[in-house]
Amino acid sequence: MGLGNVKVLLFDTFGTVVDWRGSITRKGEHLARDKGIDGVDWEAFARAWRAGYIPGMARVQSGERPWTAIDVIHRERLDEIVAEFGIAQALSEPDLTAMNLWWHQLDPWPDSVPGLVRLKRGYLISTLSNGSVICLSSMAKRAGLPWDFVFASDLFQAYKRDAAVYLGAIGLLGLDPGQVMMVAAHNDDLAAARSHGMQTAYVGRPYEYGPDQSKDFEADEPWDIIGETIEDVARVMGT
Amino acid sequence: MGLGNVKVLLFDTFGTVVDWRGSITRKGEHLARDKGIDGVDWEAFARAWRAGYIPGMARVQSGERPWTAIDVIHRERLDEIVAEFGIAQALSEPDLTAMNLWWHQLDPWPDSVPGLVRLKRGYLISTLSNGSVICLSSMAKRAGLPWDFVFASDLFQAYKRDAAVYLGAIGLLGLDPGQVMMVAAHNDDLAAARSHGMQTAYVGRPYEYGPDQSKDFEADEPWDIIGETIEDVARVMGT
Repeated sequence: MGLGNVKVLLFDTFGTVVDWRGSITRKGEHLARDKGIDGVDWEAFARAWRAGYIPGMARVQSGERPWTAIDVIHRERLDEIVAEFGIAQALSEPDLTAMNLWWHQLDPWPDSVPGLVRLKRGYLISTLSNGSVICLSSMAKRAGLPWDFVFASDLFQAYKRDAAVYLGAIGLLGLDPGQVMMVAAHNDDLAAARSHGMQTAYVGRPYEYGPDQSKDFEADEPWDIIGETIEDVARVMGT
Repeated sequence: MGLGNVKVLLFDTFGTVVDWRGSITRKGEHLARDKGIDGVDWEAFARAWRAGYIPGMARVQSGERPWTAIDVIHRERLDEIVAEFGIAQALSEPDLTAMNLWWHQLDPWPDSVPGLVRLKRGYLISTLSNGSVICLSSMAKRAGLPWDFVFASDLFQAYKRDAAVYLGAIGLLGLDPGQVMMVAAHNDDLAAARSHGMQTAYVGRPYEYGPDQSKDFEADEPWDIIGETIEDVARVMGT
């Protein structure tokens, strides 16, 4: 099916729509100033926190662990890294609870809101994210992300790249897979979407992981759209 | 818990936020003019269509029938009533498909958009409706209903007043039930919500069913908020 068939665009969110690394770094620096915490490389802290994400989800996906929401995985990893970075003593339980909510308060890339506002004129737009409903909708309100609805891992009790997420989304929409487009900065997310018949748009975010970035510098396959921003996607989609 | 604890407001949609009877009537009259169909009382047609809704859902809720989406229930009832109203011959299959989508294109009551825009400033707002995700999000885009997210029967594969819907919503949000408020024009919806610990707001819609209205003329219990419009709810909630 061609692009003219697309009715709904589903967006990966962490990395594709919002800049988790920059956001967590800024929040850490702000907290450090408030608390008088010195000597922490908050950019490294952000990457270390995120580094717990894939293995945490993998334990759920493998069945080693029953369904566990991403907020729980984030919190478990936070408890590890505050020890690793030597700041556990400086932080209270309410501090840690508030820090875990940083993932609900991530800032968008500069092109995200303008691109989504344009796309919303012509299409239904939603997340299809490993975040939770409450995380993604809180983030959207704060950042002005104009989602029509929110599809989140907790709706499907599964994480991407599990087929249950993509098939669950397509099933809920009651559309042909080719009427649904996955938009992501991650080639493996698009490969999974394409394997289920979805259309695909790649948005390059080569600075997502900073020094930890080891892949996704460019499109690995001829995705249906290849762009550098969400505004590029909006332009190709005619909005 | 008091109203100050509320973080999320969940709205019944058909009847509470949108005027299905007036909308379907207007669409029928428009179709009749286009097709040269005479002599149909489209307001009665709208009520007859809606009258298939409760029994259709009841067969699913009782387990007599496996999960069946509301769009399917609407279509089955449509096939019945076009025969009853003597217009089956005048309508093609594409006509019937388009008519079934009228439920995705319902118009809001005059106070709905202004009230929701106000509430959205202070709270997360969503549907908690027997509609489907695609129905509710398509409706919202057309009508300007500014939902933060969309909770729909197909996410839970259950219909209100089944506990699975209310408990499913609360569980997804990860909140205490008292932090979530159900807003509805239907006392039994609020009674179910309250039985699960949710806060409750009644919005009177005494003209929802027209001549078929047999209940819900007023609040049957002392709900946490009792108002005549969604703007009343916004005012009480301080937005």
